Amino acid sequence: MLSEELIQELRSIVSHENLDINKASLLVYSYDATPQFQSMPDAVVSPRNTNEVSQVVRFCNKHHIPVVPRGSGTNLSAGTTPVEGGVVLLFKHMDQILDLDEENLTVTTQPGIITKDLIDVVESRGLFYPPDPSSMKISQIGGNINENSGGLRGLKYGVTRDYVLGLEIVLPNGEIIRTGGKLAKDVAGYDLTRLFVGSEGTLGIVTEATLKLIPKPETKKTILALYQDLDAAAKSVSAIIANRIVPATLEFLDQPTLQVVEDFAQIGLPTEVKAVLLIEQDGPPSVVAKDMDEIAKICREHKAVEVSVAKTEEEAEALTTARRAALSALARLKPTTILEDATVPRSEIAKMVKAIDEIAKKYDVTICTFGHAGDGNLHPTCLTDVRNKAEIVRVEKAFEEIFKYAIELGGTITGEHGVGAMKSDYLHLKVGKAGIEAMQQIKTALDPNNIMNPGKIFAKSERKRVVVTK
Amino acid sequence: MLSEELIQELRSIVSHENLDINKASLLVYSYDATPQFQSMPDAVVSPRNTNEVSQVVRFCNKHHIPVVPRGSGTNLSAGTTPVEGGVVLLFKHMDQILDLDEENLTVTTQPGIITKDLIDVVESRGLFYPPDPSSMKISQIGGNINENSGGLRGLKYGVTRDYVLGLEIVLPNGEIIRTGGKLAKDVAGYDLTRLFVGSEGTLGIVTEATLKLIPKPETKKTILALYQDLDAAAKSVSAIIANRIVPATLEFLDQPTLQVVEDFAQIGLPTEVKAVLLIEQDGPPSVVAKDMDEIAKICREHKAVEVSVAKTEEEAEALTTARRAALSALARLKPTTILEDATVPRSEIAKMVKAIDEIAKKYDVTICTFGHAGDGNLHPTCLTDVRNKAEIVRVEKAFEEIFKYAIELGGTITGEHGVGAMKSDYLHLKVGKAGIEAMQQIKTALDPNNIMNPGKIFAKSERKRVVVTK
Repeated sequence: MLSEELIQELRSIVSHENLDINKASLLVYSYDATPQFQSMPDAVVSPRNTNEVSQVVRFCNKHHIPVVPRGSGTNLSAGTTPVEGGVVLLFKHMDQILDLDEENLTVTTQPGIITKDLIDVVESRGLFYPPDPSSMKISQIGGNINENSGGLRGLKYGVTRDYVLGLEIVLPNGEIIRTGGKLAKDVAGYDLTRLFVGSEGTLGIVTEATLKLIPKPETKKTILALYQDLDAAAKSVSAIIANRIVPATLEFLDQPTLQVVEDFAQIGLPTEVKAVLLIEQDGPPSVVAKDMDEIAKICREHKAVEVSVAKTEEEAEALTTARRAALSALARLKPTTILEDATVPRSEIAKMVKAIDEIAKKYDVTICTFGHAGDGNLHPTCLTDVRNKAEIVRVEKAFEEIFKYAIELGGTITGEHGVGAMKSDYLHLKVGKAGIEAMQQIKTALDPNNIMNPGKIFAKSERKRVVVTK
Repeated sequence: MLSEELIQELRSIVSHENLDINKASLLVYSYDATPQFQSMPDAVVSPRNTNEVSQVVRFCNKHHIPVVPRGSGTNLSAGTTPVEGGVVLLFKHMDQILDLDEENLTVTTQPGIITKDLIDVVESRGLFYPPDPSSMKISQIGGNINENSGGLRGLKYGVTRDYVLGLEIVLPNGEIIRTGGKLAKDVAGYDLTRLFVGSEGTLGIVTEATLKLIPKPETKKTILALYQDLDAAAKSVSAIIANRIVPATLEFLDQPTLQVVEDFAQIGLPTEVKAVLLIEQDGPPSVVAKDMDEIAKICREHKAVEVSVAKTEEEAEALTTARRAALSALARLKPTTILEDATVPRSEIAKMVKAIDEIAKKYDVTICTFGHAGDGNLHPTCLTDVRNKAEIVRVEKAFEEIFKYAIELGGTITGEHGVGAMKSDYLHLKVGKAGIEAMQQIKTALDPNNIMNPGKIFAKSERKRVVVTK
């Protein structure tokens, strides 16, 4: 709890209307999209500019008050849950595009803009900002940067990190620094830009970002390939890429996911097959046409039972939108939905999908699997009910086994959701004790009072994944 | 100086033949490609594997002995000069490709392989590793990673950082960590991979790297556009990109550079024009043809006096090779060649090139300018003689003014050469006091005894750029 005196001081920085300690409001910001993590903040603060962010952070650092930057709370690793209380920072007053530079192909923006809004502005100029997390209709760019968000176009175009050229950052000591710029090349000292991208708000506050744009692809086409054999679908993925074709999107949905998505979206998805690949290629028309022919051929050679090209843009769009809705669709079925992002080298997808099925059976839990097959970034999604304590213990065990097997296959515990509070107990599996130590040394060096989003990334206790905090 | 006892201990780690303290050998490793920095190491050590690297580093950490990892010494910022003595690490026994994975499009390699050798192996499989520093015929991948090397293809394809997916690193405490992997997406904790890329050997030793590959472009074409007006050449660069064309290569050479390169390469380059753009596009034939037509049209519209497409692959290759030889060609003219890499947003190239000319005149020094115009990454190159003390003072002042103006235009002091010992006095211009402090905190956290390539990146004293150390 913050004393009345501290609240007053905070209020004097951001003004009366930008500090909220109303119980109902605090409740709204006590959780994010991650099930089973909830913890009350002490105040919700909405600074109007970088200078105010700096003053707030300086104040919090002096008084050792946790600071939790928050976009739209679509986080799936409890990354924005204020697990140690403190101040939740909102960016509703810092949501403007500051500059769209067509000569340098950059956009400079404040963190609070909705990802899709930024994408729309950029595309209206014939330019392209590729990172497209499924939550892009509500997520904010600042959140995307803090989480290094991926998306459906990651295979060909990379992730958020690959498009961040420069940042304005408020450090834990309140100092404001600028990294990078409208520069394709910059090696002046350590790469603070990429260190901050994906640091989950634990090292400082991003108050401005300069993002790289590319020319918008001229056209795109979408293929749906149906399989009665999981393995065949997975092998098609590897074969396409081994044939030197890198599609913009290469998504995988298993039968249970298909069924649920079709019930939800009702666009005529096939629900009788074991797996579907949704493949999109973009680029110049001649290249897209050639790649699509080749992809269709490879899928058929790998035992696709049907391969169809979306006839219209609307049909293609409907398919992609349905895929993006997978989480929402699955979330309707059971009280608790736990969506994971175990990731493996793409050559290992078949093994991983099979293992997930076996592990689900072994622990008698329901896991649907879909995801970015081209990236090896799968989303095994467990439909469960947190009130069923016995089942939750089995869910825990199942996911632990899934993570361990992903690591065994050369993969990682998280491809795009971050570690947050949810997976900190598993980080050692991927980076080892020495890796965690190196990360902790960096954290302590930049944030000695541990005010920046404490309780994230680094495991603190024996706490298990699915536990309500506070 | 290392005591005989310490030498013995080191020798016992790597074996007799892999430790060299012969005066002549030490002299060979007392400098790199940067003029006017020279300093003797105490020993040259060639470990045979990661385990030996770890033992050497652990030993050096215990005894506070500097460790300087060195590739082929093509560094242009005195990054591999052992300015505080100690052990120079060579990777001649660690130069193997460990795995070329065509399903995951990755190559895993030891650091000591020559860049061009790796590129050749990869291309023989129809794959492509784009980073192509001009020194690639002799540079090593490990050096490229430590410096985050750029090259001619940076505009379209990015720099070394964009292709490093995972690393094996020996930390200053001797611990071995692995980051990333054959993974398109991985957000398990801080991005140590990119923190180490470009860290100039000051944070640890890279002992293995997994690099991303892409399909090799089907074809490429090269255009030479000639200008009698610098400004027109620079405007063509912006116009091409503003027209949504991103060429693979977009190089600029001014008249003095052209003259010198032609004298050297004798391939019939025009020497009577004020500037030349060398533009390469790669990709599917139809796209390349269309882009080339468009580029030629834009160049003509922007007052190119002549635009010619290379008729054969050999002709195109000769042009690119001549450009890559610019430094060697210039280096023949005067005893001392100082090649810089001030970088600006590409929209500011015209201003920057003009300013460099004016600054050179103001200080009565000879500066030729060429470079990666598409990246805004220019190489103003001063031909001078270090024995002429009065001139060197003027050269100093000229470069300081060039750096300051680059920063003023939103640029940086170094686009691809690194800070090293040469530009540490200028780092504050780009990242500010708070930025340097943040970097120093990271350095101190990971390397508390400051054994890893000490004297680099961070300014120590009032030492000026062009000074012989020790």
